[in-house]
Amino acid sequence: MYIIDQNSKTPLHIQLYEELKKDIIKNYSIDEKLPSIRKIASTYNLSKNTVESAYTQLYAEGYIESYPKRGYFVSDLNYKEFNSDENIILSQTKKKKEYLYDFFPARVAKESFPIKLWKRLYNKAIDESLDFGIYPKGQGESELCEEIAKYLIRSRGAKCESYQVIITSGFAESMRLLSQIIKEDHKNFAIEDPGYHVAREVLEECGFDMDYINVDDNGLVLGELEKSDSKIVYITPSHQYPKGVTMPIPNRQKLLEWSKKVNGLIVEDDYDSELTYYNRPIPCLQGLDNYDRVVYLGTFAKALSPALRVSYMVLPKHLLPRYEKLLDSYFSKVSISTQKTLALFMKDGYYDKHIRKMRTLNKKKHDLLKSLLKTHLGDTMKIEAEGAGLSILINPSKEFDWDKLKELAEQNSIKLYFAKDVSGGKWQAIRMGFGGFSEEELKTSIELFSKIWHECLI
Amino acid sequence: MYIIDQNSKTPLHIQLYEELKKDIIKNYSIDEKLPSIRKIASTYNLSKNTVESAYTQLYAEGYIESYPKRGYFVSDLNYKEFNSDENIILSQTKKKKEYLYDFFPARVAKESFPIKLWKRLYNKAIDESLDFGIYPKGQGESELCEEIAKYLIRSRGAKCESYQVIITSGFAESMRLLSQIIKEDHKNFAIEDPGYHVAREVLEECGFDMDYINVDDNGLVLGELEKSDSKIVYITPSHQYPKGVTMPIPNRQKLLEWSKKVNGLIVEDDYDSELTYYNRPIPCLQGLDNYDRVVYLGTFAKALSPALRVSYMVLPKHLLPRYEKLLDSYFSKVSISTQKTLALFMKDGYYDKHIRKMRTLNKKKHDLLKSLLKTHLGDTMKIEAEGAGLSILINPSKEFDWDKLKELAEQNSIKLYFAKDVSGGKWQAIRMGFGGFSEEELKTSIELFSKIWHECLI
Repeated sequence: MYIIDQNSKTPLHIQLYEELKKDIIKNYSIDEKLPSIRKIASTYNLSKNTVESAYTQLYAEGYIESYPKRGYFVSDLNYKEFNSDENIILSQTKKKKEYLYDFFPARVAKESFPIKLWKRLYNKAIDESLDFGIYPKGQGESELCEEIAKYLIRSRGAKCESYQVIITSGFAESMRLLSQIIKEDHKNFAIEDPGYHVAREVLEECGFDMDYINVDDNGLVLGELEKSDSKIVYITPSHQYPKGVTMPIPNRQKLLEWSKKVNGLIVEDDYDSELTYYNRPIPCLQGLDNYDRVVYLGTFAKALSPALRVSYMVLPKHLLPRYEKLLDSYFSKVSISTQKTLALFMKDGYYDKHIRKMRTLNKKKHDLLKSLLKTHLGDTMKIEAEGAGLSILINPSKEFDWDKLKELAEQNSIKLYFAKDVSGGKWQAIRMGFGGFSEEELKTSIELFSKIWHECLI
Repeated sequence: MYIIDQNSKTPLHIQLYEELKKDIIKNYSIDEKLPSIRKIASTYNLSKNTVESAYTQLYAEGYIESYPKRGYFVSDLNYKEFNSDENIILSQTKKKKEYLYDFFPARVAKESFPIKLWKRLYNKAIDESLDFGIYPKGQGESELCEEIAKYLIRSRGAKCESYQVIITSGFAESMRLLSQIIKEDHKNFAIEDPGYHVAREVLEECGFDMDYINVDDNGLVLGELEKSDSKIVYITPSHQYPKGVTMPIPNRQKLLEWSKKVNGLIVEDDYDSELTYYNRPIPCLQGLDNYDRVVYLGTFAKALSPALRVSYMVLPKHLLPRYEKLLDSYFSKVSISTQKTLALFMKDGYYDKHIRKMRTLNKKKHDLLKSLLKTHLGDTMKIEAEGAGLSILINPSKEFDWDKLKELAEQNSIKLYFAKDVSGGKWQAIRMGFGGFSEEELKTSIELFSKIWHECLI
């Protein structure tokens, strides 16, 4: 007898599939015939489609065989056709947990996006010039490339021209495109350790051998890079991910000299540069480069919106001919309407204003979170990284039960993020994201968090 | 003496770079010192930045060396540091030619996009529910997945549920994602020959060994597939790219049986299915599949707009657990606003209406183009493929000077597209795209084209 609950949120065919599977494993032998679709449908008052879906799934997973006009039979389960080593869980049966407080370190406050203005510019962009009948240009719309080049020169001290700027749908696409451009020259690729996990994942997937270079208080340890087999390195010099350190100018010069010496490349990810709260942002490494050796990566996800999916890459000039070879069958993945709207947003000065606003707003939240952490956790906590971006990284300064922290956080519907889980290596820190919270939410969330925290001190 | 034209469209530093390069190659010897930036700037009334840019480019290409406080010196050109085998052409110096008539086979008429309605829905989507502070969900926004599933069941005879639908930024992203999901099971990948070049490019890049399977009047030749090493095949059964043939139902059944027998997969690209002019569209292969063996690919580029960059993929259920493993660090590349607007557009019935409108409109253009070709080219031409999509494929039926056609088309500012150039193999046809033309433009363009055509008959 199968238990099918007509009022459950789980679809009927999934319920039936689960019941049948249990039954097959427990009670059936190989080649034994299963009841017909018609029979199950009438017994359990289900539609034939529902029963067929359940059988299809069992078939797909190798539990049963199907023979036309004969019916369904139990497979030899010791010889599963495929997925033998995978535990099939259907998407809908896995419900995503809803959290009360989610400290996601890359979230931007919903209220801060200039919705009215954006709608107006979107409508304007469409009315003025938009042709929905064509593909976006591979490199990106020229207006947007120009505005980004101007912005980078003005605000980040970059040296570039608009034809070096490429619009992408995010960091991963930038890295993948770059990999295609440079893969014939490089087998090894150096990255920071700890470092940005998405960089590692994409580069591994593109077939590079990774050289892991340690990070100290001055950022990437140059001596280690020099000893490695890599002639290309991915770094986050302005605000190291995840440790938050800044590479000093002399080290930047040395790194550039290295790139010249080995005919190498430096991939500078300037992801958080717009959001620095204590000092003026330092100019980017790309702006110091006289050797045409730096690939620059930037994004609109942090200072404007992650929902838009717009990032960009500035290629050194000597790589442009190779890039152009890829362009023949390549269209930008960012819709023309988004690109044109963003170009207007930048051209009319709104982006600069918006960054100033976001810096003020996020500095306030940053400072509030810092003071809340100090008040509630006191000297049981040390701050690992602060002063930029959308999170503060902390660690316990005393003996601490990490497993208990994870357990209690789950129990209290708090979602926490840990540097070690994503960055590789051994370096640990709790990444307390504040971007998505209001000030009121920050207060209540840290109160709850501190209660948990104190229970984990040993 | 360098020739610098202050009124030219070519930027000054590029002009200077070209002049300097010529001068170096002709008149300088290794290690000879070049004039200082200051000197060139004052001689030619240029800014120092302009001169520095030109020198930077020459440096990047290995023509000159730079020594601090000493200046610029000519390199040993026989030993170029990098790019030695590449002929550097800077992007802007390569101007894209403007064509009078461009027969691009994947263009949609600008006027046919419902701009007012789209703006209204975009504004509504933003007002109702949009959070610009978060990343798009990896799989896509659930409303859009649901609308696509309903549409495919209703209009394409598919069998799927919304949790099988994945939103992507285009065909290449769909294929790349699929490659990641299935790569551990497959080394070889079968594709049609002639076939879709982007499929081939992406799959090669992902590291598969390609098996090329011929196409006859019934589409893919199944016997060849069975003999190949591949257990996965990419096909365009409804409207073969580029030959336009349709795979009959018995062959579809055989193909499905093959996939079951080898525990394989069929990747069905249904790209043009909305635009068929003579018959009702045949249901997709995915809808015939009882073995959970078909991956379905679709797009909004043909029937709605290529500018939006939205495509989708329907995964068989047994691949979902693997897909979910990739989702941890994966965000959809399509902006949330585009996805939500499109979901409203489908939900309110506008997409179905729009497809009907586009089918009528494009059928009219298709029939007009066909009759124009018949009138002007008569029996010197044979039609290779017609009745669907946004182009008619033709060939000369008599001896023909192909090189002359290409030459005369360029001279007359007509852009033509040839099947062989992109599809691989030997199969040739001229792809006469009509989607982007008005009826008036079709008439004048074919008049001009036919004049050229007749000059090429031998």
